[in-house]
Amino acid sequence: MGTPSIRTNVAPLMRPTHPAATKLACVMVGLPARGKTYVARKIARYLAWLGHHSRIFNVGNYRRSAVGAVQTHDFFDPTHPENAARRKEVADRALADMLLWFDKAGDAPVTGAVMTKDSPMTPIGSRGRSDSLSLSGAGKAGPGWVAVYDATNSTADRREGIYRKCLEHGVQVMFVESVCDNNDIILANIKEVKISSPDYVGMDPEKAVEDFSRRISHYAKNYETLTPAECNDEIPFVKVINVGDQVIVNKVKGYLQSRIVYFLMNLNITPKSFFFTRHGESMFNVAGKIGGDADLSPRGQDFAKRLPDLLKDNLGEETKLTVWTSTLKRTMQTAAYLSWPQLQWKQLDELDSGVCDQLTYEEIEEKFPSDFTERDQDKFNYRYHGGESYRDLVQRLEPVIMELERHHEADHAILIVGHQAVLRAIYAYFLNYSLDELPYVKIPLHTVVKLTPKAYGCREDRFAVDVPAVDTHRCMPHPALDAKNK
Amino acid sequence: MGTPSIRTNVAPLMRPTHPAATKLACVMVGLPARGKTYVARKIARYLAWLGHHSRIFNVGNYRRSAVGAVQTHDFFDPTHPENAARRKEVADRALADMLLWFDKAGDAPVTGAVMTKDSPMTPIGSRGRSDSLSLSGAGKAGPGWVAVYDATNSTADRREGIYRKCLEHGVQVMFVESVCDNNDIILANIKEVKISSPDYVGMDPEKAVEDFSRRISHYAKNYETLTPAECNDEIPFVKVINVGDQVIVNKVKGYLQSRIVYFLMNLNITPKSFFFTRHGESMFNVAGKIGGDADLSPRGQDFAKRLPDLLKDNLGEETKLTVWTSTLKRTMQTAAYLSWPQLQWKQLDELDSGVCDQLTYEEIEEKFPSDFTERDQDKFNYRYHGGESYRDLVQRLEPVIMELERHHEADHAILIVGHQAVLRAIYAYFLNYSLDELPYVKIPLHTVVKLTPKAYGCREDRFAVDVPAVDTHRCMPHPALDAKNK
Repeated sequence: MGTPSIRTNVAPLMRPTHPAATKLACVMVGLPARGKTYVARKIARYLAWLGHHSRIFNVGNYRRSAVGAVQTHDFFDPTHPENAARRKEVADRALADMLLWFDKAGDAPVTGAVMTKDSPMTPIGSRGRSDSLSLSGAGKAGPGWVAVYDATNSTADRREGIYRKCLEHGVQVMFVESVCDNNDIILANIKEVKISSPDYVGMDPEKAVEDFSRRISHYAKNYETLTPAECNDEIPFVKVINVGDQVIVNKVKGYLQSRIVYFLMNLNITPKSFFFTRHGESMFNVAGKIGGDADLSPRGQDFAKRLPDLLKDNLGEETKLTVWTSTLKRTMQTAAYLSWPQLQWKQLDELDSGVCDQLTYEEIEEKFPSDFTERDQDKFNYRYHGGESYRDLVQRLEPVIMELERHHEADHAILIVGHQAVLRAIYAYFLNYSLDELPYVKIPLHTVVKLTPKAYGCREDRFAVDVPAVDTHRCMPHPALDAKNK
Repeated sequence: MGTPSIRTNVAPLMRPTHPAATKLACVMVGLPARGKTYVARKIARYLAWLGHHSRIFNVGNYRRSAVGAVQTHDFFDPTHPENAARRKEVADRALADMLLWFDKAGDAPVTGAVMTKDSPMTPIGSRGRSDSLSLSGAGKAGPGWVAVYDATNSTADRREGIYRKCLEHGVQVMFVESVCDNNDIILANIKEVKISSPDYVGMDPEKAVEDFSRRISHYAKNYETLTPAECNDEIPFVKVINVGDQVIVNKVKGYLQSRIVYFLMNLNITPKSFFFTRHGESMFNVAGKIGGDADLSPRGQDFAKRLPDLLKDNLGEETKLTVWTSTLKRTMQTAAYLSWPQLQWKQLDELDSGVCDQLTYEEIEEKFPSDFTERDQDKFNYRYHGGESYRDLVQRLEPVIMELERHHEADHAILIVGHQAVLRAIYAYFLNYSLDELPYVKIPLHTVVKLTPKAYGCREDRFAVDVPAVDTHRCMPHPALDAKNK
């Protein structure tokens, strides 16, 4: 028998087939400064984190690289035929690149089948080591291919052209329109992201706002909002009005479309912060063991006692706090001195290391040497026998991310008292780390991380508490680094 | 130390508080035969399965018990003042009962807090044995209280009255309107559920359809559809048009509201069937061990070989099939002779029995006698140390249920090759079993179950395959039965 393997390895008697991958283009619609790019980035990040191939094709970037960044509002005036032609040319180039990207995804036919590969499941045969190593980071779990075509696409005519081209390439289309008639939101958006855009480098902010407002009015002249009639009562669209006050969902079908709509429904732009910390040092940390359900060490207890003051000092705007813990003792003991409301969440439990639970890394290396190496080679996809992979963990944490996105009281913060792998996954979502990098994110013990999402990024503050703790981080081994750098 | 306990038992140093329970009234809106009762039942069943308190207050039932079942359409004529008064009286009685039900839920204030108890998490302190035994089956995990007020509520005036009353009782309101202008769907609905309703006992079906159509036209005279203006731009509503072709979501906030809307978005009325089977008998089944990742026994292999023909013979209308398995060997080996597309789903893995994994029940009883007893007393809530409870399992399976609901190709069936606990949970959802009954549902080995959901129920066919297998079912023990019958 040789060395026992801790990895499930099944050779099916017949080679099972699996459904084709979904190819979906989310075509943004809306006037400038309606948060299209914000929404596009959110969708792309969310899907990439869930393991789908996702890419944004931003026409603004194509325009800047084609005609230069600095263009005043005249460039967007629809009555200038020459400029209109150049803008169309640039938009077409972005579209062509998107279709090329889809074509490269392979010739898997897009079917209307109920179970296309964009489902939350893994097609059988896609998890084996041999093929997983030959694919990109996001390519192992039967993902969908989703492009976000980020442009105004403000006329029915333009949209019909995009739809037809996508259809020719076997790509589903879902229009995503952002409508906003709240001038405060529009102005805040212009000030937050537009005047700092490459389009206005070096320009006086007030002049930039004025120029941008005129740019909007050029588009407004010809703007046509989506209607079921335009969509022939069959093309799916979702219309988000005033940042989610109202959402209109039309003919949405398929798992990915449905998830994107649910995600959009839960988005909001309330300023907010999240705090994360691992539990205090546990007796297992001290012993170098993984998993288990150990008590805190004396130093871990010290950390727990210091936590209330640290939070009070750094809550900032937030006057309320809710504490989420896992169901494991070390997180509950860490939260035991906090007087804020607390909730337990099974999904926040640490990555399940299956048969390796309660072992040290040395014991794992000794008992299961080949698996130990295999994990190093592809840590994100490696699933402990009887346990989980990081990929499994991300799926399990999806509802946590959805709750963090949905959370919308400006004065109400959340503190997650979690575990190393769990916080890596959550942190990677907010900081837009790739799935390859995710299992190596550094989340030290006795450190509180505060994340404050911004329109196009995320501010991070770290508060290290002066209570020593062991270091449980294992670096990416060199062979994996080498593979990554290839 | 005495007998070791396998149950997590943490006494927090401080008694943590937790947020208040959400009380939510889903107030149905729509003309007769628009599927309101269908939607109401679906919502209530889904939420009850997820562990929330849910109840339907159906004004039709109140009317029938107050004025008798058989009333012709005249009773619904708004120009008859006496009948209108009687109808209002009946509707008010149902409303009063609903508010009484909410009042009994306790005086937990309903807050706008981001983390009210309707979240997917468990408030700390609610899992202990002492209080869980004193609560009803659904009362252990910090559930919300959701009533569905099932009536036409077809005027803005009527709705405002309901909203005000709910507000007085600290109950959130979400209006759920079903709009349908597709006469085929309406007629099909009348024929399927209305003419067999108690209102038309003994009446000629054709006459019943005619009478019911006239009843609809009485309501149609005064019918006012929901608008954002009516809802003062702040009351949440969801409008489902033509069974989900279009969905309009307005001002929806909070976890439960958001989940209900997502669920409604995924509902459809396509006729469909699902097949379920456990894996073939495994070597662990033969040895009487639980958990693990064993191979099939020779008899299990026989079952796997018989499966393709059994399915071909019983597919019925369905011409396509997709097979879902878990990630465990015994399900994949069972599906190995099936030539349909297959998908693996980690969520379908068997209930994680933690430290009891790979033990026999006799070994568990010997090693952990008090836990063994405790599990018998409250099997749904009992969580194996380092593993899961049935309650945890239900949360994990929620995306599976959502996929089964969303699935909408009439000629496309799904076969789940699963495990005992997993199939108990799925079966309980479709057959509307209580959470107390769920862990005792009989799902024998070598038996294929076909479920065909109907408007107000679910048809079940069982196909036992003539290959012997061990019986892994453990009956509800007498003390638990006694507690249940109290």
